[in-house]
Amino acid sequence: MTLTGAHLVSGHWRRSEPTFTAQNPQTGQALGPAFCEAGGDLVEAAVAAAGEAFAATRSLEPGWPATLLDATAQRILDLGDALLDRAGQETALPRGRLVLERGRTVGQLKMFAQIVRDGAWLDATIDTADPARQPLAKPDVRRMAVARGPVAVFGASNFPFAFSAVGGDTASALAAGNPVIVKGHPSHPGTSELFATAMLGAIESLNLPRGLFALLQGRGNELGAALVRNSGVAAVGFTGSRRAGRALFDLAASRPNPIPVFAEMGSLNPLIVLPGAIKERGAAIAKDLAGSILLGSGQFCTKPGVILMVGNPTEFLSSLEGHISAAQSVTMLNQPLRDAFLSRVTQWKRVGGVSASAIPEAMGHADTRPLLFQTTAAVFLAEAELREEAFGPAALVVRCDDERQIAGVLSKLGGNLTATVHASASDNAAPLVQAMESIAGRIVFNGYPTGVEVCNAMIHGGPFPATTDANSTSVGAAAIRRFARQVAYQNMPDGLLPLALRNANPLKIVRNVNGELTTEAIGG
Amino acid sequence: MTLTGAHLVSGHWRRSEPTFTAQNPQTGQALGPAFCEAGGDLVEAAVAAAGEAFAATRSLEPGWPATLLDATAQRILDLGDALLDRAGQETALPRGRLVLERGRTVGQLKMFAQIVRDGAWLDATIDTADPARQPLAKPDVRRMAVARGPVAVFGASNFPFAFSAVGGDTASALAAGNPVIVKGHPSHPGTSELFATAMLGAIESLNLPRGLFALLQGRGNELGAALVRNSGVAAVGFTGSRRAGRALFDLAASRPNPIPVFAEMGSLNPLIVLPGAIKERGAAIAKDLAGSILLGSGQFCTKPGVILMVGNPTEFLSSLEGHISAAQSVTMLNQPLRDAFLSRVTQWKRVGGVSASAIPEAMGHADTRPLLFQTTAAVFLAEAELREEAFGPAALVVRCDDERQIAGVLSKLGGNLTATVHASASDNAAPLVQAMESIAGRIVFNGYPTGVEVCNAMIHGGPFPATTDANSTSVGAAAIRRFARQVAYQNMPDGLLPLALRNANPLKIVRNVNGELTTEAIGG
Repeated sequence: MTLTGAHLVSGHWRRSEPTFTAQNPQTGQALGPAFCEAGGDLVEAAVAAAGEAFAATRSLEPGWPATLLDATAQRILDLGDALLDRAGQETALPRGRLVLERGRTVGQLKMFAQIVRDGAWLDATIDTADPARQPLAKPDVRRMAVARGPVAVFGASNFPFAFSAVGGDTASALAAGNPVIVKGHPSHPGTSELFATAMLGAIESLNLPRGLFALLQGRGNELGAALVRNSGVAAVGFTGSRRAGRALFDLAASRPNPIPVFAEMGSLNPLIVLPGAIKERGAAIAKDLAGSILLGSGQFCTKPGVILMVGNPTEFLSSLEGHISAAQSVTMLNQPLRDAFLSRVTQWKRVGGVSASAIPEAMGHADTRPLLFQTTAAVFLAEAELREEAFGPAALVVRCDDERQIAGVLSKLGGNLTATVHASASDNAAPLVQAMESIAGRIVFNGYPTGVEVCNAMIHGGPFPATTDANSTSVGAAAIRRFARQVAYQNMPDGLLPLALRNANPLKIVRNVNGELTTEAIGG
Repeated sequence: MTLTGAHLVSGHWRRSEPTFTAQNPQTGQALGPAFCEAGGDLVEAAVAAAGEAFAATRSLEPGWPATLLDATAQRILDLGDALLDRAGQETALPRGRLVLERGRTVGQLKMFAQIVRDGAWLDATIDTADPARQPLAKPDVRRMAVARGPVAVFGASNFPFAFSAVGGDTASALAAGNPVIVKGHPSHPGTSELFATAMLGAIESLNLPRGLFALLQGRGNELGAALVRNSGVAAVGFTGSRRAGRALFDLAASRPNPIPVFAEMGSLNPLIVLPGAIKERGAAIAKDLAGSILLGSGQFCTKPGVILMVGNPTEFLSSLEGHISAAQSVTMLNQPLRDAFLSRVTQWKRVGGVSASAIPEAMGHADTRPLLFQTTAAVFLAEAELREEAFGPAALVVRCDDERQIAGVLSKLGGNLTATVHASASDNAAPLVQAMESIAGRIVFNGYPTGVEVCNAMIHGGPFPATTDANSTSVGAAAIRRFARQVAYQNMPDGLLPLALRNANPLKIVRNVNGELTTEAIGG
């Protein structure tokens, strides 16, 4: 499979100037071909095509997203080794991880296809009329989710499959019935193009509107800003840094007509290890915690970055330090990320009262050494930069006086994707669970936050700055809700209603009819 | 019952300087007592008390909001004539309307109490563990809605009961478990104080945390801005003008930690009358449409403000004009609103190609005459000010060449709360229903948008500028969702889970367990 380096707009591969090349983070060497950088004209073309495709979907049968997602999943598998090879070159992620992530990505597409077929996500709700009600007749009112319109999705560098061109945001936005315009991450443009070929193949084979999916490649911020400012874009999905996510949020909020930005911006992910847990299974926790910190070279949004404990459990800390420093060198996704990581931990190290192993001076292209830092709650609360995420293989141990101080530290952390506590039967975890609930979207007990299960109950979100919408998730079944809005229909003739709301319930979906959940038809 | 003119903060009536007085819109005369204007210190006090109350609710049984809402509903009824008298003086709304609106307000409180007891709104979702799953064990993940924290609610002038101090926003925010700080509307401060006494009485009788409800009075914008900027406020509910709603939205979005603003900002509410409908029942439509335009002196968010039709049906228009001008004079809620109304319609009249009856020069304190304007689609699309809502007793008829041009006009309108079509069997309404769906939160067929049914299926919302969150509603059961966020719990011991998620299902609520809706316990 030959990569073109072009953008995909309205079913055509479109070229533009200037170009850029991908780099192999392990070697620093350029990876061909030259990739085009999209300008404003291609943004306009992609959004216009998406708008036309959105209008055209109204004539399609309601299950079209399910068919498209299933077909795309198969075509991703059909890419075979070409996808794994290219992604490995562009990201330095090990093949085993990429195989797992491909499975997850294909699984997400199939899950959303099933959600579309199931129809419960529409939240179809029907209150039938009562013309005799006093003092006023009761109208017939029915509501359901409808698509918002073209969605701009920003690919993330750290999950080149599951959160990138055809990742969870794209899958859930399409599932809800929206066209998607992807801004590919410049760290893996070849991988993005391969996903685009899979999606295009599926769209063509099903003869769906070509504007349903676009891929625009580029390095600069202006491409993303142009997408978010475009009046034809109805919503935004983003996974990445807080700075970039906040910038897009601010742009969207300052539009003449603001649109929602669902940005997942990473997290400190506090993890508490209580004394009883250390006593009971400290060695196992030290080993598994180090594994969680180092997973994907520390480049998980859910990496436990702040480890809270009572007192100074030296044996546990020494064991944790040993596991962390056992990995002499890891390769990050790209050199800019590695440089940002070293810059952040250098800031940490400069703070008085922070101890750490030596920070490496010069290593390979995107390489670094994993690092463990330690400080006290007093220092951690006093120094704001310690509460900034270090995206990469590092964690900061914060030694607290007691459980009460741990709860106090949690309350100063702001929003997080996750919060975790390790406790034994002798620990009193309940007050900490309440403190964690106030700041996090997901609370993990005696486990590790990395590895986000794709299921109905998952919340991969949390209060700002973890995300820009505390009631959203970018992983799991509920992610589809971000990209729809509820519309009500009053006294509408049956034939003018969407199929999901018609009396006969032709889609056979679960609906709330006069307060009862049922798949039955209405009337008869 | 003697009004104090004070604020309610943490269960105490607190005074401040300066003061203002309410005015009787029918006479322009001041209505005693002097009402205090809150400054930043009272905002701080109210938010701090709300934060403490929020923390205290964690020790309460989960049904506390239901008990509080039911008790408040009864105490509102117990206010009896004192409430109706004061509201009548402050708003000039007829007693019959106020009695209806009181019924609706009490009904809302009881509905949300029932929603809390029912528990389905929590969206409790449980995926149980599968330790044997390959390649990775499947964790136990459970999620449900939890309260966001203190909510600031802005009372609206046009519904002094249903959208004011203890209206739909307050009821739904409390139902979700949040403390509420109300910024009372300065147009009816006495009415707001009466509602606050009812709420305080209920809180005291149930010995609930006093900080659960606060009322701050004032006239200026700074009070509202201070509330929205306060770091202890987690969300905002607002009903009012686009300018004020947008200002609060912008403030909230520019915070270090942005918070959601659910602002309902009114609407043009296009209403289409197709040729077949005019032929079939033009006389009845003209009469009922005029009634809908003039309801509450034209001060409904859902007033049909733009009337679209094909050609120039002179008989129908003359009949509509006759019904509109039959009311020689109506009293608006206050003089500033009346002045803003006259200013807007004067702008309309100055536009070339707009015809209208004479605009009154001088009338009573807050009085005006109802007005009907006419123009063509070409003029309407060319002149932006014609697409700005005139809040008051006026509507603008837009004559179009054909149904296709009507759809074109709809597509230029931006977001609306409602869109309505009147059609007969001979009309082809289907393409217009699709066009309406793209811009509105609720589509009404052969009816009128005023009178928003409080039910499960209602959506009183719509794309910007109708609201700041196109997927929200401020009326009906789904309004509660605005004020909660979903939190997931992973591998949590049963005893540490919220009651709604425990294996035994002690609250007996409907839950999604491994994809099936059930009230059954888990395991056994």
